Amino acid sequence: MFYPFDETHMARALALAERGLNTTMPNPRVGCVIVRDEQIVGEGWHIRAGEPHAEVHALHAAGPLAHGATAYVTLEPCSHFGRTPPCSDALIQAGLKRVVVAMQDPNPLVAGRGLCRLREAGIEVVCGVLEARARSLNEGFISRMERGRPWLRIKSAASLDGRTALANGQSQWITSDAARADAQHWRARSCAILTGIGTVLADNPRLTVRGIACERQPLRVIVDSQLRTPLDAAVLDAGHALIATAVTDAARFEPYRKLGVDVVSLPDAEGLVDLPRLMQELGQRGLNEVLTEAGPLLNGALIAAGCADALLLYLAPSLLGNGARGMFALPEMDSLQQRQQLHIQEISPVGSDLRILAQFWRRQVAA
Amino acid sequence: MFYPFDETHMARALALAERGLNTTMPNPRVGCVIVRDEQIVGEGWHIRAGEPHAEVHALHAAGPLAHGATAYVTLEPCSHFGRTPPCSDALIQAGLKRVVVAMQDPNPLVAGRGLCRLREAGIEVVCGVLEARARSLNEGFISRMERGRPWLRIKSAASLDGRTALANGQSQWITSDAARADAQHWRARSCAILTGIGTVLADNPRLTVRGIACERQPLRVIVDSQLRTPLDAAVLDAGHALIATAVTDAARFEPYRKLGVDVVSLPDAEGLVDLPRLMQELGQRGLNEVLTEAGPLLNGALIAAGCADALLLYLAPSLLGNGARGMFALPEMDSLQQRQQLHIQEISPVGSDLRILAQFWRRQVAA
Repeated sequence: MFYPFDETHMARALALAERGLNTTMPNPRVGCVIVRDEQIVGEGWHIRAGEPHAEVHALHAAGPLAHGATAYVTLEPCSHFGRTPPCSDALIQAGLKRVVVAMQDPNPLVAGRGLCRLREAGIEVVCGVLEARARSLNEGFISRMERGRPWLRIKSAASLDGRTALANGQSQWITSDAARADAQHWRARSCAILTGIGTVLADNPRLTVRGIACERQPLRVIVDSQLRTPLDAAVLDAGHALIATAVTDAARFEPYRKLGVDVVSLPDAEGLVDLPRLMQELGQRGLNEVLTEAGPLLNGALIAAGCADALLLYLAPSLLGNGARGMFALPEMDSLQQRQQLHIQEISPVGSDLRILAQFWRRQVAA
Repeated sequence: MFYPFDETHMARALALAERGLNTTMPNPRVGCVIVRDEQIVGEGWHIRAGEPHAEVHALHAAGPLAHGATAYVTLEPCSHFGRTPPCSDALIQAGLKRVVVAMQDPNPLVAGRGLCRLREAGIEVVCGVLEARARSLNEGFISRMERGRPWLRIKSAASLDGRTALANGQSQWITSDAARADAQHWRARSCAILTGIGTVLADNPRLTVRGIACERQPLRVIVDSQLRTPLDAAVLDAGHALIATAVTDAARFEPYRKLGVDVVSLPDAEGLVDLPRLMQELGQRGLNEVLTEAGPLLNGALIAAGCADALLLYLAPSLLGNGARGMFALPEMDSLQQRQQLHIQEISPVGSDLRILAQFWRRQVAA
């Protein structure tokens, strides 16, 4: 049974979960609120992997007041011993009367077991309150659990006529300071930043999070079929980078490995990196959200291969004309039915620019 | 002196003025509200040229209650005999105590004279209430009065990556039914629709207003340097069209004129149509707002020549890739400082698409 305040309290739990946006990976972001007689008596959120889950923090805050109370949790409480004991047991032991959950555990192997365990202990369980918002908060974790691969977001910055650089390559800066600062937040919440060898050679970017207090840096992943990344490239600085290549001669990986850079060989039939296999590889490495900051070739290849889930597009209020460089190299289309379709989720002004969030139409992707 | 309700009543007058959106041309859209003891006692708006002005309608509705009342008018009342007697006299004769005006008459030769006349008659006059909104309602009329040329709005429909058609030319339909229906409203409010010979030959469009009850149709203007418009082109149907050409041999105009189509020769040094001169020509013909529905060449040329004032852009949530056709053929740029800059005024979802309204940065334009 649902109650009028269920959504209000779950919204609070979601807001708490969001505090872990940049830190919980590879775990999901989870928040918990414990409510007794319509008063919040405990709150908590998961901060980082290996540390207590949201429910444990909230139960600790509530103390004996948890007895007979209702818990709001943004994700089904776990029922297994991982790095911490199962939260469903903790809720049972604390004497909760009712547990309201936004969504089931997305892992098909465990989904519903935590809820079962609570129900078997006589606790009233409700699932599905603000589920869409809860899913959107953990798109990456859900993608990895359900599909074995990360949620891939392609970032692009272009003029209103869809141009990312002049014909001569000049692109600094098409968008405003505010848009570039906003993009740092999307880096900070990502487990990895994906780029291509073309961008590495042309711009030598570092691809680290700047301007945001950040206790971890995302992994840098470079798609580099022929293994041309210079050993002194900024993107390899301080290691914490992964090169995906089509080269199979492991001897060539050694100089990178000595720098602490991992190299994985994933050749496809054309001698390029097999992008769908790379996605699976990134999933196996526990990466939830991956942000792609690349040029038109890699972006286009990821889209054409069905690897792209979302578009993060900054549009600057300017026009560069048809001679300037385009956003995405896609295979030529004979019919508009072949176009890549998206649906727009959000539009926001960012400085003088527009930020558009859109999702690619969901297709079946070969594993 | 301003009073608290001034903006409320002026907002009502602006809403009334908007009812003339599609009909007042070449006159401006004007609304009027007469208020006595904070009660509206008369309302009116200008419907079409040659018929009474907004003030006259509102005074008629108010009758003797206008005596001692306040009039809110979205544009300075006229002080001259045009097709109707001066409204400032009518307001004086009706015994108004106070007149609140959103903006002065934009014609530099007459601006302020109507207000003077009212003040000389002992009426309290306030000017500038909701002025920005009033100006935006009559951008075209103001442009014609201040610059001698219409307000030129460029319509474009593209994918999120700025593509208007596939490489093979297929473009029906990139945007949704809703976006195309919305575009009809922008046609209906325009005095003219401007297109190029390329679009006429490729698509044979009619460029009339469809799906909206509309007592007048905008003038169709075709930029056709070499005078290649087929005599049976849909855009010439029923006359009410103007061809701007660089051909100077008037004998070649005759077949068009026999169809009721006007032809004007405006050659530039390169044997193309002189676009800034065309803008002046359209201004002289009393055109306020002109909507351009053309291909990348004419659009690009208008933008490069400084003739474009605004962009009406429908973005569909799809990607067509770099092989597809771009929006604007602009002269090649060596530096981002040469980009065409705009500021975004409004973003709205229209069906599954986005509508972006933006204005080009105002530059000095050679007359």
